[in-house]
Amino acid sequence: MKRTETDSLGTVEIDANRYWGPQTERARRLFRIGTERFPTGLIRAIGLQKQAAAEANLALGELPRAVAAPIVTAAREVAEGKLDTEFPLPVWQTGSGTQTNMNANEVIANRANEMLGQPLGTRSPIHPNDHVNRGQSSNDSFPTVMHIAAAEAVRFLTIPGLRALADALTRRAAAWESIVKIGRTHMMDAVPITLGQEFAAWARQVTLGIERLQDTMPRLLSVPQGGTAVGTGLNRHPDFDTVFCERLSALTGLDFTANPNKFEGMGAHDVFVELSGMLNTVAVSLNKVGNDIRLLGSGPRAGIGELLVPEDGLSSSIMPGKTNATQSEALTMVCAQVMGNHMAVTLGGAQSFLELNVFKPVIIHNVLQSTRLLADACESFATNMVDRLEPNFDRIAENLAKSTMLVTALNPHIGYDNAVRIAKTALADNTTLKEAAEKLALVTAVDFERWVHPEKMVRPGDMLAST
Amino acid sequence: MKRTETDSLGTVEIDANRYWGPQTERARRLFRIGTERFPTGLIRAIGLQKQAAAEANLALGELPRAVAAPIVTAAREVAEGKLDTEFPLPVWQTGSGTQTNMNANEVIANRANEMLGQPLGTRSPIHPNDHVNRGQSSNDSFPTVMHIAAAEAVRFLTIPGLRALADALTRRAAAWESIVKIGRTHMMDAVPITLGQEFAAWARQVTLGIERLQDTMPRLLSVPQGGTAVGTGLNRHPDFDTVFCERLSALTGLDFTANPNKFEGMGAHDVFVELSGMLNTVAVSLNKVGNDIRLLGSGPRAGIGELLVPEDGLSSSIMPGKTNATQSEALTMVCAQVMGNHMAVTLGGAQSFLELNVFKPVIIHNVLQSTRLLADACESFATNMVDRLEPNFDRIAENLAKSTMLVTALNPHIGYDNAVRIAKTALADNTTLKEAAEKLALVTAVDFERWVHPEKMVRPGDMLAST
Amino acid sequence: MKRTETDSLGTVEIDANRYWGPQTERARRLFRIGTERFPTGLIRAIGLQKQAAAEANLALGELPRAVAAPIVTAAREVAEGKLDTEFPLPVWQTGSGTQTNMNANEVIANRANEMLGQPLGTRSPIHPNDHVNRGQSSNDSFPTVMHIAAAEAVRFLTIPGLRALADALTRRAAAWESIVKIGRTHMMDAVPITLGQEFAAWARQVTLGIERLQDTMPRLLSVPQGGTAVGTGLNRHPDFDTVFCERLSALTGLDFTANPNKFEGMGAHDVFVELSGMLNTVAVSLNKVGNDIRLLGSGPRAGIGELLVPEDGLSSSIMPGKTNATQSEALTMVCAQVMGNHMAVTLGGAQSFLELNVFKPVIIHNVLQSTRLLADACESFATNMVDRLEPNFDRIAENLAKSTMLVTALNPHIGYDNAVRIAKTALADNTTLKEAAEKLALVTAVDFERWVHPEKMVRPGDMLAST
Amino acid sequence: MKRTETDSLGTVEIDANRYWGPQTERARRLFRIGTERFPTGLIRAIGLQKQAAAEANLALGELPRAVAAPIVTAAREVAEGKLDTEFPLPVWQTGSGTQTNMNANEVIANRANEMLGQPLGTRSPIHPNDHVNRGQSSNDSFPTVMHIAAAEAVRFLTIPGLRALADALTRRAAAWESIVKIGRTHMMDAVPITLGQEFAAWARQVTLGIERLQDTMPRLLSVPQGGTAVGTGLNRHPDFDTVFCERLSALTGLDFTANPNKFEGMGAHDVFVELSGMLNTVAVSLNKVGNDIRLLGSGPRAGIGELLVPEDGLSSSIMPGKTNATQSEALTMVCAQVMGNHMAVTLGGAQSFLELNVFKPVIIHNVLQSTRLLADACESFATNMVDRLEPNFDRIAENLAKSTMLVTALNPHIGYDNAVRIAKTALADNTTLKEAAEKLALVTAVDFERWVHPEKMVRPGDMLAST
Repeated sequence: MKRTETDSLGTVEIDANRYWGPQTERARRLFRIGTERFPTGLIRAIGLQKQAAAEANLALGELPRAVAAPIVTAAREVAEGKLDTEFPLPVWQTGSGTQTNMNANEVIANRANEMLGQPLGTRSPIHPNDHVNRGQSSNDSFPTVMHIAAAEAVRFLTIPGLRALADALTRRAAAWESIVKIGRTHMMDAVPITLGQEFAAWARQVTLGIERLQDTMPRLLSVPQGGTAVGTGLNRHPDFDTVFCERLSALTGLDFTANPNKFEGMGAHDVFVELSGMLNTVAVSLNKVGNDIRLLGSGPRAGIGELLVPEDGLSSSIMPGKTNATQSEALTMVCAQVMGNHMAVTLGGAQSFLELNVFKPVIIHNVLQSTRLLADACESFATNMVDRLEPNFDRIAENLAKSTMLVTALNPHIGYDNAVRIAKTALADNTTLKEAAEKLALVTAVDFERWVHPEKMVRPGDMLAST
Repeated sequence: MKRTETDSLGTVEIDANRYWGPQTERARRLFRIGTERFPTGLIRAIGLQKQAAAEANLALGELPRAVAAPIVTAAREVAEGKLDTEFPLPVWQTGSGTQTNMNANEVIANRANEMLGQPLGTRSPIHPNDHVNRGQSSNDSFPTVMHIAAAEAVRFLTIPGLRALADALTRRAAAWESIVKIGRTHMMDAVPITLGQEFAAWARQVTLGIERLQDTMPRLLSVPQGGTAVGTGLNRHPDFDTVFCERLSALTGLDFTANPNKFEGMGAHDVFVELSGMLNTVAVSLNKVGNDIRLLGSGPRAGIGELLVPEDGLSSSIMPGKTNATQSEALTMVCAQVMGNHMAVTLGGAQSFLELNVFKPVIIHNVLQSTRLLADACESFATNMVDRLEPNFDRIAENLAKSTMLVTALNPHIGYDNAVRIAKTALADNTTLKEAAEKLALVTAVDFERWVHPEKMVRPGDMLAST
Repeated sequence: MKRTETDSLGTVEIDANRYWGPQTERARRLFRIGTERFPTGLIRAIGLQKQAAAEANLALGELPRAVAAPIVTAAREVAEGKLDTEFPLPVWQTGSGTQTNMNANEVIANRANEMLGQPLGTRSPIHPNDHVNRGQSSNDSFPTVMHIAAAEAVRFLTIPGLRALADALTRRAAAWESIVKIGRTHMMDAVPITLGQEFAAWARQVTLGIERLQDTMPRLLSVPQGGTAVGTGLNRHPDFDTVFCERLSALTGLDFTANPNKFEGMGAHDVFVELSGMLNTVAVSLNKVGNDIRLLGSGPRAGIGELLVPEDGLSSSIMPGKTNATQSEALTMVCAQVMGNHMAVTLGGAQSFLELNVFKPVIIHNVLQSTRLLADACESFATNMVDRLEPNFDRIAENLAKSTMLVTALNPHIGYDNAVRIAKTALADNTTLKEAAEKLALVTAVDFERWVHPEKMVRPGDMLAST
Repeated sequence: MKRTETDSLGTVEIDANRYWGPQTERARRLFRIGTERFPTGLIRAIGLQKQAAAEANLALGELPRAVAAPIVTAAREVAEGKLDTEFPLPVWQTGSGTQTNMNANEVIANRANEMLGQPLGTRSPIHPNDHVNRGQSSNDSFPTVMHIAAAEAVRFLTIPGLRALADALTRRAAAWESIVKIGRTHMMDAVPITLGQEFAAWARQVTLGIERLQDTMPRLLSVPQGGTAVGTGLNRHPDFDTVFCERLSALTGLDFTANPNKFEGMGAHDVFVELSGMLNTVAVSLNKVGNDIRLLGSGPRAGIGELLVPEDGLSSSIMPGKTNATQSEALTMVCAQVMGNHMAVTLGGAQSFLELNVFKPVIIHNVLQSTRLLADACESFATNMVDRLEPNFDRIAENLAKSTMLVTALNPHIGYDNAVRIAKTALADNTTLKEAAEKLALVTAVDFERWVHPEKMVRPGDMLAST
């Protein structure tokens, strides 16, 4: 069953039970591109934006309560996800997100009118442009929606995910702080560290990632709502932007502020490029964590083998009984995606023209995908990998004992050049350092025992204090 | 309703009516990351790969007909999309795609056993590993699936999409070959060209894009099937790879060949980086086309305005009656995504380790998204933009008449330095070139008329011939 | 003339008058790759690092004054650029920068010994490893050098460059704040803004770029010096890291702090990925500025033409008298380079393995190139473009008068749908809005004059207040 | 000493002994950005382009011999590198490369006039625009120079470098084809391969890289010379483009052809994006080669240790006697740079506007840097790493013997699920596979010996044939 709806641009047939209107329907037909849709977090942000706008217009006398109240109710339903299926448009539409903003205006107007007893398509008493979009333009509303969705995702998804991973790593760092093992630089045997120190370094990376995201938040919470068509704020109440931010902050618990230069907030989306750069940095950090654990867990017999990767019940389709670091692989693939997304965001940001950046949908699509993927991958990696790792004590001890780089502890006592001779002799003769030191008569057995202590080399401050 | 299923790694509860088995179910729980799923083109490729494998094993006597036949039938159902919902796993899984290969093995085994009258979960008479995966490993099967899916997408989606756009542009080039207009270099007024020449240049870019993709096809059609676990081909019939390719070619109509070095085809995915580089080049081309048309259509009154952008019934939410180049925006956003995807593919390719690249899912996810988006965006742009553009004759004539760069036609007659003087005088005095030439006494009115013909400047070969 | 020098790894011939030693000479021969060398800012940072280290070792009793003092003097010469030609190694060397650190150790040791009356190559009384490198490793020294060089470049080059540009833009914004002109969204005519508002938006972007860089500074000033070989701090005085930072801060005027987790600062270089992400954001901003000015200056007759691009005395080699926005082109090319460099940095950061990132030289090479290019390009663009731009008043007025988007001012009075009818009628009839409004009997001439004021539409707060 | 020179745009002071003229001098002052200059390969290409152009103009009667001959001579000097220091301009100039083209026009005109006995700055009898630039524009000449420089670099630098590396790898593959070792997938122990197979896979990657570059050559050899200002070919002889290509081919030995659509070749630089994509693919390949060798050479005692990395006389500044895979690090850093450069090229290509891409200098700068770095890094890696690697036979044997993945050979005999039980038992009990097989009574000792042969598992075709 279809209904015929008319707006200023003509008539169009729409499924009778759909809340969307002619603008959405036209766009649906004109943009048959790909399968990508905005995530629910963006639809929620649209509801929040429309609700806060209606509340602000009500407070400022721009809309009567009889009009504002049903808009608020309908917008809240959008925010709550009750009307998600009424947003059918692809990411690949107008670069201003206009169609999605109009989609929201139409859905909310129809739903509000419906609550007031009107059939769908009436455009009265609630009009999608004159009332739902009151004092707004797509050009300021959609970027504001982008800010809301990204800020919520960072604060409520990505940061908690990172924190879960940092916590898991920190627990391991504490538990294993005394397991002395060989360190590796250039992938080659180096002087000792502890397993706890390795986990603590990864935890530190992740924690700094949280700090980076938090540093970006103030700029992300600064929204261009109130700029309307080009940034001047034409057709909106002078106080609309600040009252809007108060309402929005109340609805979300985040401290949104009115961007003092709305032209900047509509014509450019530098803050999303910045945020994406931070997510890119987080991905770089996590790529190391995932990869390092894969390397330390390599083997089980013919690799480094110092960590035991959890058996996850997944197996090779041909090699029986093989256990792989599958969570590292999922994590590092997510990192590759986030870095790729960053380039898409950069390209979208760089091609801003004059008063309006028209790469808004591709920018927010990628930013939101990155925030979600990092969050989920961190949770999965923390739970299914970090929490279930175990040290392979035998292998750790064996690798440490073999190393020739303990010779570094002799530098302050016999000089660098002599230490080189000992190390090279041990490698050439395939003997221990101690044997080589004695053969070369450079260090006595007693001094060697006194000076070379792996367990002290990992806490050199203590060692120096004790000598 | 659940059924309990047991494999070599333990037991697991599965929805009773699901075709997938314990490996899939375990993976489903272990990888709760994001919402991205493989597109139907990849599931189809899995079906084709399993069907061709079963046919090859049958032909080579590796599987009896009683086992091979139901596998072929079930695999064909997968290829036909009948079992798409039985592939629930996310992109973010094991980097070898093992879980998706096992998913296929389990679904096909269960479906085949069902056709043989067995309940789901029986693993007999058709066993997912021993029969469906016969002579295969995920490590050679999944990359082969990647090649199949990408080759079909390029040949049957992207190239046709590009061709549709090239054709549309070429039609415009022919129709408008005689519309003389001002050219622009550095975005500044330059010597004349024709509108047709502009469209022909864009058509040429798109056509070269098709050529680029075709050049990559031979390497893309070279598949590593037959490498099994590490590339050596352990546990498969010596002729399996070549017979497999014959079957696959018959099923798809594409000339698949056996990669002579299967280690290369499993340990590295350079060809996908190459293909993605070609898609990136195509995106670069299309970004210019979309952007140039947006620039020429800018206005309608205060821009360049030489093209009339089609009214598409979409409108600004605040500025009444505004028509935008919405299809250019969708197209250029797609281009940004494809360039970003290319970076993800590059990162996935670059981090290949030893005998197996474990960024397979992220690589193919991005490649397939790019092939699809480019195809759809080209179709949409051809239909909704190129076919509906109109020249703004008045504006074209006005812009041409005003230009001072027609002075370039005087270079061969009065020298470059004198021509500079004329141009600068005209700009300073805000007069025409002819007036300036006469004022400076450098060219007579008669000679000016004889030498400066915009319509000849666009076909200088003719002009030179006629002088 | 050659001298023969011997170290623990053998003998090598070196130009007799060179300060470098065998490690540098061997590296010179082993890495014949490309022409890229570290910029002088990095060599300066090496000198600062070695000076601060020697001063710290002296203060802590790790080196006697007779050894420390000549090292300090020689290191200061390096910092002052007096020995730049003694650093011959390419960027493409060991990924830890070890050869460049050894280069510094050798040059400083030789220069110090020379000052003490010894011939070059003596390695005594000042030894390159035991004394110049005292309490250090390349693994903590070279990344510390990276932090120093980048921090100085950001603070003393990039930020001042950005500030010069922001100031130039701000001066224009103030001077032209009342020039009312047409705004453009989607590159299409939109409601009015002022020329000053456009410049103010660009100034805001640039100013936010400074803010972004400053936010990164605390993490950039946190250096891993003191980690020595793997992060544990083996073979250095317990207080070396903090005393080193005090000395370094005194030498540079920047507040360097000791990274509390040296493993993080050596094994990962996330902060450079972050910094590069900020530079990438700055490049995105500047790309818009350069491009927008190019667009507004396009013409002079057949483009937008609202800005007069300065005549710079450069000309087309064929089109006489043509003036192009050459500074926009240099600037946007720099932006493309910075975005590309960002990817190189990301790749270098992402591939950190275990205790040592071995992409240090490529990371710092790209970061320093970006900091310098942005600084220089901003200065050039401010001086040669922004300061010399002029508004084209006639064109601005003409473009504004023609626009049909002034109709937006009618929305609050006659509703959006009626406003659409007026705009479409004006476009179809090629008349003014006022004529169309009267024709449709939607607005009287008197009301039209009262409601449609471009100069008020750019300050809608005033307008609303005055009505 | 200065000379004062005057052109159509005014007068300017120039160092008296410089061959460049006022356009170059003005540009030198206007673009004080960075330190990057075009490489000698580009200056050579400029000489070739100007020589071929003069020869073509002579042949076509467009220039008299008295004018053409000295231009040819002077241009040849440029091509031979004799005037390299006369090209002082930075990369960061006009995006069309106009200043560098004018630089060439001025240098060649002055040098030609000098040979004719005139003082520098005469502009007569040879005029930089009217004669040296005859029938040309920067807009077609500079991109043609880009094609020449890139084609020569690919053919004479990059491909030979890749071939040297492929040859070195192939020699190793042949020499070590029978060294059976453990394979690794997911970085975990897998079924056996040979060391030769690993090198052959890398050789194959490199060889395919050569093939990729060769596939691009025809498009790269298609030059837009003859398009002059906007692509129409205004002011040049109708046959200029084809005769030019004949001359150029004769000078270079490469088959240059005239681009049939000069608009495409000037307005877009898609072929450089394509070429850069191929270089990016090559970098991806080489990143794997460098990294894999680093991994196999890790240790020497606590890593994989199957390859002995050559002692190169370079050492850790703190860890005595440490040998690192320094050439892998240089190589992989080069790869990161090339991938970054690719993004810069992509950005430059994507932002083409209308009749002229104005990111030419940044595009060719990055392309040429990539071609050179890859060439040099391949040569260095072949000579200093691949040719000097040695297998660590003891370690290879030890790693192979320990593996539990030999169990895969049992799949066809006892089924996958039973094989899993054996592998898991061996791992749990820390025993050999054979012991586990016997314990589980799944395989007899005799059968085990008969079925499990690592040396046959690497050539399964033989094995199957022999069973």
